[in-house]
Amino acid sequence: MLLKENIPVGYIIGKIRKELLAVTLYAAVVAAVHEYVGWARVELPLAVPMIMGTIISMLLAFRSNQAYDRWWEARTVWGSIVNDSRTLARQVNTLSKEVYQGDEFFFFKQRFIKRQIAWCCSLSRSLRQQPAAEGLERYLVKRDLEHIGQFTNVPMALLELHGHDLQQALDNGWINTFQQVEVDRTLTRLCDAMGRCERIKNTVFPATYSLYIHFSLVFFFTLLPFSLIDVFGTLLFIPAMVAIATAFFLVEKMAIHLQDPFESKPTDTPMTAICATIERDLRQVINESYPTELVPQKKKHFYIL
Amino acid sequence: MLLKENIPVGYIIGKIRKELLAVTLYAAVVAAVHEYVGWARVELPLAVPMIMGTIISMLLAFRSNQAYDRWWEARTVWGSIVNDSRTLARQVNTLSKEVYQGDEFFFFKQRFIKRQIAWCCSLSRSLRQQPAAEGLERYLVKRDLEHIGQFTNVPMALLELHGHDLQQALDNGWINTFQQVEVDRTLTRLCDAMGRCERIKNTVFPATYSLYIHFSLVFFFTLLPFSLIDVFGTLLFIPAMVAIATAFFLVEKMAIHLQDPFESKPTDTPMTAICATIERDLRQVINESYPTELVPQKKKHFYIL
Amino acid sequence: MLLKENIPVGYIIGKIRKELLAVTLYAAVVAAVHEYVGWARVELPLAVPMIMGTIISMLLAFRSNQAYDRWWEARTVWGSIVNDSRTLARQVNTLSKEVYQGDEFFFFKQRFIKRQIAWCCSLSRSLRQQPAAEGLERYLVKRDLEHIGQFTNVPMALLELHGHDLQQALDNGWINTFQQVEVDRTLTRLCDAMGRCERIKNTVFPATYSLYIHFSLVFFFTLLPFSLIDVFGTLLFIPAMVAIATAFFLVEKMAIHLQDPFESKPTDTPMTAICATIERDLRQVINESYPTELVPQKKKHFYIL
Amino acid sequence: MLLKENIPVGYIIGKIRKELLAVTLYAAVVAAVHEYVGWARVELPLAVPMIMGTIISMLLAFRSNQAYDRWWEARTVWGSIVNDSRTLARQVNTLSKEVYQGDEFFFFKQRFIKRQIAWCCSLSRSLRQQPAAEGLERYLVKRDLEHIGQFTNVPMALLELHGHDLQQALDNGWINTFQQVEVDRTLTRLCDAMGRCERIKNTVFPATYSLYIHFSLVFFFTLLPFSLIDVFGTLLFIPAMVAIATAFFLVEKMAIHLQDPFESKPTDTPMTAICATIERDLRQVINESYPTELVPQKKKHFYIL
Amino acid sequence: MLLKENIPVGYIIGKIRKELLAVTLYAAVVAAVHEYVGWARVELPLAVPMIMGTIISMLLAFRSNQAYDRWWEARTVWGSIVNDSRTLARQVNTLSKEVYQGDEFFFFKQRFIKRQIAWCCSLSRSLRQQPAAEGLERYLVKRDLEHIGQFTNVPMALLELHGHDLQQALDNGWINTFQQVEVDRTLTRLCDAMGRCERIKNTVFPATYSLYIHFSLVFFFTLLPFSLIDVFGTLLFIPAMVAIATAFFLVEKMAIHLQDPFESKPTDTPMTAICATIERDLRQVINESYPTELVPQKKKHFYIL
Repeated sequence: MLLKENIPVGYIIGKIRKELLAVTLYAAVVAAVHEYVGWARVELPLAVPMIMGTIISMLLAFRSNQAYDRWWEARTVWGSIVNDSRTLARQVNTLSKEVYQGDEFFFFKQRFIKRQIAWCCSLSRSLRQQPAAEGLERYLVKRDLEHIGQFTNVPMALLELHGHDLQQALDNGWINTFQQVEVDRTLTRLCDAMGRCERIKNTVFPATYSLYIHFSLVFFFTLLPFSLIDVFGTLLFIPAMVAIATAFFLVEKMAIHLQDPFESKPTDTPMTAICATIERDLRQVINESYPTELVPQKKKHFYIL
Repeated sequence: MLLKENIPVGYIIGKIRKELLAVTLYAAVVAAVHEYVGWARVELPLAVPMIMGTIISMLLAFRSNQAYDRWWEARTVWGSIVNDSRTLARQVNTLSKEVYQGDEFFFFKQRFIKRQIAWCCSLSRSLRQQPAAEGLERYLVKRDLEHIGQFTNVPMALLELHGHDLQQALDNGWINTFQQVEVDRTLTRLCDAMGRCERIKNTVFPATYSLYIHFSLVFFFTLLPFSLIDVFGTLLFIPAMVAIATAFFLVEKMAIHLQDPFESKPTDTPMTAICATIERDLRQVINESYPTELVPQKKKHFYIL
Repeated sequence: MLLKENIPVGYIIGKIRKELLAVTLYAAVVAAVHEYVGWARVELPLAVPMIMGTIISMLLAFRSNQAYDRWWEARTVWGSIVNDSRTLARQVNTLSKEVYQGDEFFFFKQRFIKRQIAWCCSLSRSLRQQPAAEGLERYLVKRDLEHIGQFTNVPMALLELHGHDLQQALDNGWINTFQQVEVDRTLTRLCDAMGRCERIKNTVFPATYSLYIHFSLVFFFTLLPFSLIDVFGTLLFIPAMVAIATAFFLVEKMAIHLQDPFESKPTDTPMTAICATIERDLRQVINESYPTELVPQKKKHFYIL
Repeated sequence: MLLKENIPVGYIIGKIRKELLAVTLYAAVVAAVHEYVGWARVELPLAVPMIMGTIISMLLAFRSNQAYDRWWEARTVWGSIVNDSRTLARQVNTLSKEVYQGDEFFFFKQRFIKRQIAWCCSLSRSLRQQPAAEGLERYLVKRDLEHIGQFTNVPMALLELHGHDLQQALDNGWINTFQQVEVDRTLTRLCDAMGRCERIKNTVFPATYSLYIHFSLVFFFTLLPFSLIDVFGTLLFIPAMVAIATAFFLVEKMAIHLQDPFESKPTDTPMTAICATIERDLRQVINESYPTELVPQKKKHFYIL
Repeated sequence: MLLKENIPVGYIIGKIRKELLAVTLYAAVVAAVHEYVGWARVELPLAVPMIMGTIISMLLAFRSNQAYDRWWEARTVWGSIVNDSRTLARQVNTLSKEVYQGDEFFFFKQRFIKRQIAWCCSLSRSLRQQPAAEGLERYLVKRDLEHIGQFTNVPMALLELHGHDLQQALDNGWINTFQQVEVDRTLTRLCDAMGRCERIKNTVFPATYSLYIHFSLVFFFTLLPFSLIDVFGTLLFIPAMVAIATAFFLVEKMAIHLQDPFESKPTDTPMTAICATIERDLRQVINESYPTELVPQKKKHFYIL
């Protein structure tokens, strides 16, 4: 769930406490040696960390951009899932003769639209590596539940069932041939959205880039004290080191979190909230009420990244 | 409303007056201590703020780019809403037999095109978190008004009604099966545009990035005086600090405003003006005159961001 | 018209003569004070303009990128107008039975394709804020001319007429239902292109960004002399200032020109030339000759930006 | 196969051992001369490598971005191949009358879906410059195998066969005319994906950019020792040179690997794993079991780039 | 033709020999004056070229990015021409009844597919400003050759002929109405690709940007010697200047070459090779053999940019 509330500073710092601890200890050791072991004093001109700082901040900019793009694409895909779910509901509900068509047709519509809710839920669960078929009893009829049991990829099985139902609706004369093809196109878009989520989930950010940026940071903080200790003096030196380290490691950590938007962290794509929105909108299409208080139950998490 | 008129300098400065006041006070304190408390003089080489300045300006560049992209995407989505509203009007008006079809068909066209104007208005209102159904009596027939009362998502309900009307037009033989599917595709695009607006509205810019950039700026301005005070001398020092602070905080503030383009600020997407344009164009299609002086009523706001 | 010919240096410099004059005067005053009023000498280390130069050049890079994107999108939209006009001509010309269909059908084709030329011209004129309906007598039949008189948005009215003609062609049996929908889709793309042009035209580049960049430049050139005057000496100082100022202001001015591609400047989208190309290609489809020497009449302008 | 496991540091360093060796030797020679041949001491101010470092890191940023884009586009294309393969299976399976249609229709479905698996495999093999028709006996019927023998471009021949089968299905009345066109559209998307892969494969990254960046690095490391040797002292000088060289050459090497995503390196697009996923999903559609342990056989490679 | 072979260093240097010669002469003059005319010695701190170097490298980055984008878009458009040509061949070949349809239908297919090869060739030739209709006798029947003689825009005329043939095929009952519209859509995509090529060809890169970047470089190299001559000493000074100049001018030249991808340079889009690939693939569809050794005839050129 995306919230704008204030984030406790402690939470942010907590993400990088290991790095900060290491930097503090290292700075303390350097300060002690500098103070008491005169012959071991090493001094570097500030130009050396400046060269490195330029390169590191460019790499961090590159990384932030790519991580943000992954996160934003994930969000965009789920936005298009919302759109296509609504479109599917509208098409199933309106692309059919207005004349009375008996109970069977009414149940067909219900089954179809609830199956779409199930599709969203199961996709969300499988992206979070939870059992995808769990909790679908609320939405699916028995025959459908049995059918999906044979499939590894549950959302794909549900799209299959959508397809079969469409063909049956055509055979029964509830929709015409154009409408079948048009709704099938919506299924194709949903299939695309599913594949795009899987692609983001399964493609790791090139690992050596991550590694290299981390190494560069370590190297940078190994050299930095020897340039700063005389500038700041022993008194201000340690807090200055910690402040600079906080800045750099925080940017790195933010990129790391953004780049994997389907990992059940408080920072990932809010799939549960999106699914709840879809369920509310789709149930209203088939005139079912929906308890709106289901959404805000996760308020304890703040949107941190 | 987007205007190119001159923006009073006061307005711009007003946006960042809190930050400027804080910087001025801080600089004054530093100058006083520097002047009168000799032993507390701290001097930093300019290289330290230079390293930080490079990183901060890269982060501001990253932020400006992403904020601009959100703003431009919001504008693009509303551009496509204009296009698809016009397309819908053209299709409803021309994709039907030319032969005389009685009053019922004439009222159908009127109802449909006015409902599209209502859709634009209600989407604009719901994005600004105003009651979405308000003021739609001018455009909708009674039955439609009752129908949308049951829905949380009013624009989606209006698309449903579009869909039902299309099916009815098909059943009445006013349009053929191809035309139904083609117009339905336009509805699908409108549904996409609606979802994209909601996505931009509901997805906050990653909060720790904002926070971090602000912290970095505060840290930067905490250190800067100790590098500048000797360079500029006590006389020029305070105006120089204020000038530099104005530059940095203004860029930050501009990005913050641009990144939320649906917040009823003078800087957001000009949805009211766009809706008025759509209303004018669509009413002319059904030969209704439209009082053009409705648009310029907001002239008091200048386009500030 | 886009030309690669050499651009006189005078033309380029002329665009920024006001800024250059101001900088020269200011530099001269600083030099005079420095030379004759010893106690007023102020010297700044070069590091101060270096920090500012980094930030300013990043802002200029941001600005150049966004301005270039607007300019390139405008060019792309007009490229797609060329494509869709040709597609429309091909469809109208070939998507119909080959058998002889009498004069009426021949005139229908002529009227349709010439109306498309008129659409391009009127869109071009309305983007340049010239009366959109002027000069269309060469392309439109009388009935069409009367019809568009009632509309504020002339290009949209012409698309309406396209749509009505298509429906009539369907009723007459000249095209089949598929073909009607397919050509209507081309009209939809043209409607999109029109809307995209209007969006670029009506959306100003965020004004405070422009303002802020200009202020930063002024502030930068206020400080710069005090860093340079000792480095270059009084003799070389003024030309050096002018050279650096030329560089910065030229980049700023180029971005300003590129960002508004529909403003009747020699640098905007070459809509007149593009319309002439469309007219030539479309007239050849209906076997009319077209005087090719219409295009090069604007040769006096060089493509400056 | 993309893995997140820890990558041995040795593997990473191994990629650039030649460059590191050269830098180490050169640094040693410079150190020796500096130590023992007093008159040959050359010293450069740090500002010289700083200017060069800025330019080089910008070029590396440009290069990294373009290489990442190629790699990500390749991954995206294969993601869309997954999507369209699933869509094709769904369409073939559900876009046809539900009534019993005899064995022939059942075999048609089987043949079609297995041929799609074959298409993925042969595209993957031809991109890796292995014989494309090898190993297809598991998926194709004899007649198809003979047909593709006449073609240089095996995947294109398989799409041809898809097309012929579709036409036959239409002639037999298994699908209707709409459905034929709709499935053909999926074939068109697959054809596009194939062409996009070939484009990335066949278009080398502009060679002089690569060359130039490498030359710049060599020049940079030729000058750097003369700026660093006094700063670090002879003792720390050589490890410092190696550390900086590791950083720069690693970034260069990463870009080089990412930019060619179809070269049978452990770092390329995981086409074998993707094909296995497609095979598993498509076989389940036709109710064939698939031995899932085929995938993890390549675990010895770690995803290094 | 794109090759990865080693590029002779001489070739690369040859592209910028004029600039290098000028820089060498200028550096020699400065060195001589510095050595023998003591009173004319001018020295500048390194910070001055550092400020300029930052701005110039940003402008070069901007330029490289835009030039690369133009080049890559050109390559992408030709990639989509390959895809759509193959799609067209598949559609013409398979979207028609399998039953025997006489010689006339066989010749229709042949004529159509060969005309598509002709379209690619003529587009390639007209982009290179060679006579577009030359050499088409190998592919076109006499009647078509006569028809295109009346058109300025030969590829557009060939699309017209495609359209007429499609309509005739519909009238003869070889294809159905759906198939006609579907193939027409492929023609529309080809028409788009043609227009996109023309757009890139006809739109020059904003000329003042090019000019300005060149002026900045000249100004930069005018000042640089006065900062470097003392640092490097008279002996190393001239080779250092040449090395730095090589770096900057090479980046500029690379961008200049990449930005015009249709200029018959060894570095442009390999349209001849792409056309040969299309010809090979399309001829195999109609079972004609194609001498594959036509492609490698251009091996003497190396892909230099």
